[in-house]
Amino acid sequence: MQIGMVGLGRMGANMVRRLLKAGHQCVVHDIDPQNVADLVAEGATGAGSIQDLVEKLDPPRAVWLMLPAAITNRIARECAGRMQAGDMLIDGGNSYYREAVDLAAELAPRGIQVVDAGTSGGVWGLERGYCLMVGGTEEAMQRLDPILAALAPGLDGKGAEPGSAETAALGYLHCGPTGAGHFVKMVHNGIEYGIMAAYAEGFNILKAADAGQQKRAADAETAPLHDPQYYQFDIDVAHVAELWRHGSVISSWLLDLTAEALEHDPSLADFDGIVSDSGEGRWTLRAAVETGIPAPVLSSALFGRFASRDNDEFANKLISAMRYAFGGHTEKP
Amino acid sequence: MQIGMVGLGRMGANMVRRLLKAGHQCVVHDIDPQNVADLVAEGATGAGSIQDLVEKLDPPRAVWLMLPAAITNRIARECAGRMQAGDMLIDGGNSYYREAVDLAAELAPRGIQVVDAGTSGGVWGLERGYCLMVGGTEEAMQRLDPILAALAPGLDGKGAEPGSAETAALGYLHCGPTGAGHFVKMVHNGIEYGIMAAYAEGFNILKAADAGQQKRAADAETAPLHDPQYYQFDIDVAHVAELWRHGSVISSWLLDLTAEALEHDPSLADFDGIVSDSGEGRWTLRAAVETGIPAPVLSSALFGRFASRDNDEFANKLISAMRYAFGGHTEKP
Amino acid sequence: MQIGMVGLGRMGANMVRRLLKAGHQCVVHDIDPQNVADLVAEGATGAGSIQDLVEKLDPPRAVWLMLPAAITNRIARECAGRMQAGDMLIDGGNSYYREAVDLAAELAPRGIQVVDAGTSGGVWGLERGYCLMVGGTEEAMQRLDPILAALAPGLDGKGAEPGSAETAALGYLHCGPTGAGHFVKMVHNGIEYGIMAAYAEGFNILKAADAGQQKRAADAETAPLHDPQYYQFDIDVAHVAELWRHGSVISSWLLDLTAEALEHDPSLADFDGIVSDSGEGRWTLRAAVETGIPAPVLSSALFGRFASRDNDEFANKLISAMRYAFGGHTEKP
Amino acid sequence: MQIGMVGLGRMGANMVRRLLKAGHQCVVHDIDPQNVADLVAEGATGAGSIQDLVEKLDPPRAVWLMLPAAITNRIARECAGRMQAGDMLIDGGNSYYREAVDLAAELAPRGIQVVDAGTSGGVWGLERGYCLMVGGTEEAMQRLDPILAALAPGLDGKGAEPGSAETAALGYLHCGPTGAGHFVKMVHNGIEYGIMAAYAEGFNILKAADAGQQKRAADAETAPLHDPQYYQFDIDVAHVAELWRHGSVISSWLLDLTAEALEHDPSLADFDGIVSDSGEGRWTLRAAVETGIPAPVLSSALFGRFASRDNDEFANKLISAMRYAFGGHTEKP
Repeated sequence: MQIGMVGLGRMGANMVRRLLKAGHQCVVHDIDPQNVADLVAEGATGAGSIQDLVEKLDPPRAVWLMLPAAITNRIARECAGRMQAGDMLIDGGNSYYREAVDLAAELAPRGIQVVDAGTSGGVWGLERGYCLMVGGTEEAMQRLDPILAALAPGLDGKGAEPGSAETAALGYLHCGPTGAGHFVKMVHNGIEYGIMAAYAEGFNILKAADAGQQKRAADAETAPLHDPQYYQFDIDVAHVAELWRHGSVISSWLLDLTAEALEHDPSLADFDGIVSDSGEGRWTLRAAVETGIPAPVLSSALFGRFASRDNDEFANKLISAMRYAFGGHTEKP
Repeated sequence: MQIGMVGLGRMGANMVRRLLKAGHQCVVHDIDPQNVADLVAEGATGAGSIQDLVEKLDPPRAVWLMLPAAITNRIARECAGRMQAGDMLIDGGNSYYREAVDLAAELAPRGIQVVDAGTSGGVWGLERGYCLMVGGTEEAMQRLDPILAALAPGLDGKGAEPGSAETAALGYLHCGPTGAGHFVKMVHNGIEYGIMAAYAEGFNILKAADAGQQKRAADAETAPLHDPQYYQFDIDVAHVAELWRHGSVISSWLLDLTAEALEHDPSLADFDGIVSDSGEGRWTLRAAVETGIPAPVLSSALFGRFASRDNDEFANKLISAMRYAFGGHTEKP
Repeated sequence: MQIGMVGLGRMGANMVRRLLKAGHQCVVHDIDPQNVADLVAEGATGAGSIQDLVEKLDPPRAVWLMLPAAITNRIARECAGRMQAGDMLIDGGNSYYREAVDLAAELAPRGIQVVDAGTSGGVWGLERGYCLMVGGTEEAMQRLDPILAALAPGLDGKGAEPGSAETAALGYLHCGPTGAGHFVKMVHNGIEYGIMAAYAEGFNILKAADAGQQKRAADAETAPLHDPQYYQFDIDVAHVAELWRHGSVISSWLLDLTAEALEHDPSLADFDGIVSDSGEGRWTLRAAVETGIPAPVLSSALFGRFASRDNDEFANKLISAMRYAFGGHTEKP
Repeated sequence: MQIGMVGLGRMGANMVRRLLKAGHQCVVHDIDPQNVADLVAEGATGAGSIQDLVEKLDPPRAVWLMLPAAITNRIARECAGRMQAGDMLIDGGNSYYREAVDLAAELAPRGIQVVDAGTSGGVWGLERGYCLMVGGTEEAMQRLDPILAALAPGLDGKGAEPGSAETAALGYLHCGPTGAGHFVKMVHNGIEYGIMAAYAEGFNILKAADAGQQKRAADAETAPLHDPQYYQFDIDVAHVAELWRHGSVISSWLLDLTAEALEHDPSLADFDGIVSDSGEGRWTLRAAVETGIPAPVLSSALFGRFASRDNDEFANKLISAMRYAFGGHTEKP
């Protein structure tokens, strides 16, 4: 079928490629004309503007947005302003699910459907297929099925048969009304933060297994290491990551990627350890807090990222100030 | 080669089966004679006691212990007392790595080698192979290689070729001197706790996505839910678990098992939510604390288990007592 | 001066008493006529309805709301509907600061001022005075100063001199525009959760100092206690709480209350350990998350309360289900 | 009575001063002769070595050690080697309680008593008195009572009457057999970490209340701030700290010190935010873990300190590496 794609970054461009390969017709737009040109060369129809893209699609239209969360709302409304009854707007980005709920309510009177399609898979989606968590009406879901089937992994990574009954095992799922897709994707990313942090902490501990070999100050500001004889191991973290991929309880795709990264450079010198977060972890935590669900692991993972960006600096200064005030403790550089 | 196996529970018995299938000769012992009889029927040689087992093995002997951590130490010394120079004792259970370090130091003067072989794979190991994290001397490692190769997954789950050079990808690894194997296994389990808790918290939040449909008290002891319209989703957690297995960033073996469990019963009514811990998570945390490595995710996961057993009861009572004291707040049943 | 008070619960009634004692004139209303009658007997003017209360006040009016968060919004609008330009509405309850921001914007065109006065002190405020964190215009702050001065502790708990320059040391503070008062109060309560949990965890650990005297299962589902000889203490927690009040770094008012509660009953048998939360801890966490500030301690405290109400049940069941699936582990009752 | 003091740092020197003022006779030693000379000038008897100190004391001797944890053990044994039956060794430093347990067992056959006296009060103890948590035999406790009474705050900070019955309210307590004192002090410090972090997180959130005024990137690596209008407050944290001291639920001595520090410099520019830990928080956590008590708040506080020293660096690099691997995300400087 025919679909418009707005936003041709890492995710959007590869999704278009996967759709083209499955025989779908794609009208594409991006603020960077080069990104449009690249896909035109691969068979897509280019559009110079949102207006142009909407005009090049036959009604009833389906426009998929694959944009940073911060601008999705604006572009969604720009699109919607040019669309008509029967058209459908799909948000595949990492937007907050509430915006999809609000947008659907706003556009319903005009007969425009809003679908939210949480999309996981990253740069590997082109080859492996994308895991799609979709919210919207039953009708919208049916109309979009061929697109979702093509984007999803299917049984072999090559996409699913359209019109399948049980789609979860094929990599796409109608999760509920508009908003449900992004809600599920939000929690997916919350979990992702937690799992990543679990591995990261574990490997960090493995690296510290040689602590008994390090020289240690013997002053009142340094906790003594009581049994240095038990911290004499030089663990090869790259080998361990590879090992755990084979038969262990904690094998996973994230571990596969970890093993590859550590194989490439066990010191990870290419990175500084400043970790961004793009919002879903925050929203997951907000959902946990508002519904009264304990989420200590997911919040610890999120706060670890905040701290990696030194957002704990004032708090730490205050602790140092208290320690100085009651005990005369000065900071050790 | 020939090996003795002491402890024929869920793990030990299946390991013997896997070794027998690979053509190794196993002398087996367990406090429950039926466990011994079962394996004798499958080709193992039974032993009625530790003494008997040691006598039935040809020197230089190799005895593998697969026992609860609480009794490993005692049985290890009972075995060692009957062994001689050149023999080898392998601890494959979830013991604290320090005990292997201590035991090795204790038996070294008598010429008995101690190997610690952290073993992951659970009840699936028979079929998938066991992931083996091994500590000991280079010499011990070489001698034990045929056994490790048979237990490990290899490339296809059927075991590895003995004598391979790069064994991590086959599912077994020489991690360092005695103790290093259990150290790596300890951290493996610490990570496992964290990953399990990350999924558990996430699915718990998904289930709460219908919070806006629940009736809610409007008193000073109940936090209001400000936007009930955003919590109107009935998420099918079993479908979501299945979905995430296909193309998502958080696919893993633990997720495979989760999907199966939720498919069987999405309410998990067979379980009460009382979660044991067998020690490795605790030891991981101790290692983190002693080496100064932050492990907020792994500790949150461990403490969640403690709290599932109501070990937070007195703390919660104290908080209730304070709330009553300063604000006259009474507990809501 | 004259002030209306709506809501005569634990907090509101005592605040009226303190104001009456300072010579202020109070018109009071509550849904329970007995609460009104009690204060009329002590010198207040009773009002049978919001309408009645507004009519009994001379313009420009000042109406203080001291209500559960869940109904503040509704009553605030009911009051405002009966008020006129120059009147002032003060919310002293534990409302979300955003509602004050919104209400102020809504009522500004009608010339009605909105002040948010975060109020700490609990049932002790009558005697000790209330700590007041106030948001609103400079003008509103000045008009309300005599009321705030009377409610605040002042230098000796008996209230402050109205018109003081540096009011923080007297127990009340203009924190910023409308909303700033409740924002500061919100964080105050977030910190309160954290401090309470810190004490609670600590006393819980003290109680466990006799762990080495307890009998312990020796199975694969129970972590062994390696050094029982180091857990042989029967700590008298009531004595310790009293002790720490005198010269220790952690002396505090919450510790004073703790000592009293433990003195009364060291087993705290009057409590079940089911801890409510009334919203501020949640909002604090939301503010932390939205602004990217790590708050692991405050979130742990909040999640501990959620777990005390068994909101972690499904998560724990899921962990049990995974353990059963990979390792055949069954739950220990 | 007569007492020897070894270690004349911030704590030890002031304790000697307080004892001298109460009329006790002190023989003092420190590796820095100047520290000895200072106290000799104030009435103490100087000792040039441990040997000298022991010789200058009349049997039965009492020697109090006030040393960094890392060297206490060594000096304790050096003292003990020169002492005789009936003598008493008191460790007042931040030592691990297990060392006191072990030392007592070791010296018991020689008739030397070991007392552990956890000491809180910091640089303020000279004036306020020290809170003393003491472990040892009943007999040792009685013999040491005059010293403890002089060091403790008593009712007015000037020390207690020796021989009082209920000593907790005077600031010293016999907590149990040797080790119990340091156990209680250990938990005291664990709680201290938690309380300090609770304040620090809270003030950090207050500082971020102006987040809506900051410019924010609008890319896929930056979580959007949805409602900037609610983050427009410039909170004066020094004023708030002062305010909370008066009538709020969270007033405490640590808050008093915080208010003073923020009054001096609200930006805390003298500090870098690198926070040491001297061991007790670690040991508290170990006790929690070994006894199965959840301690999420205390552990979060401890891990925050570890992270302030960048011990989370490798973990964060690993997370960045994973994000790059699955999503092509690069770090934002």
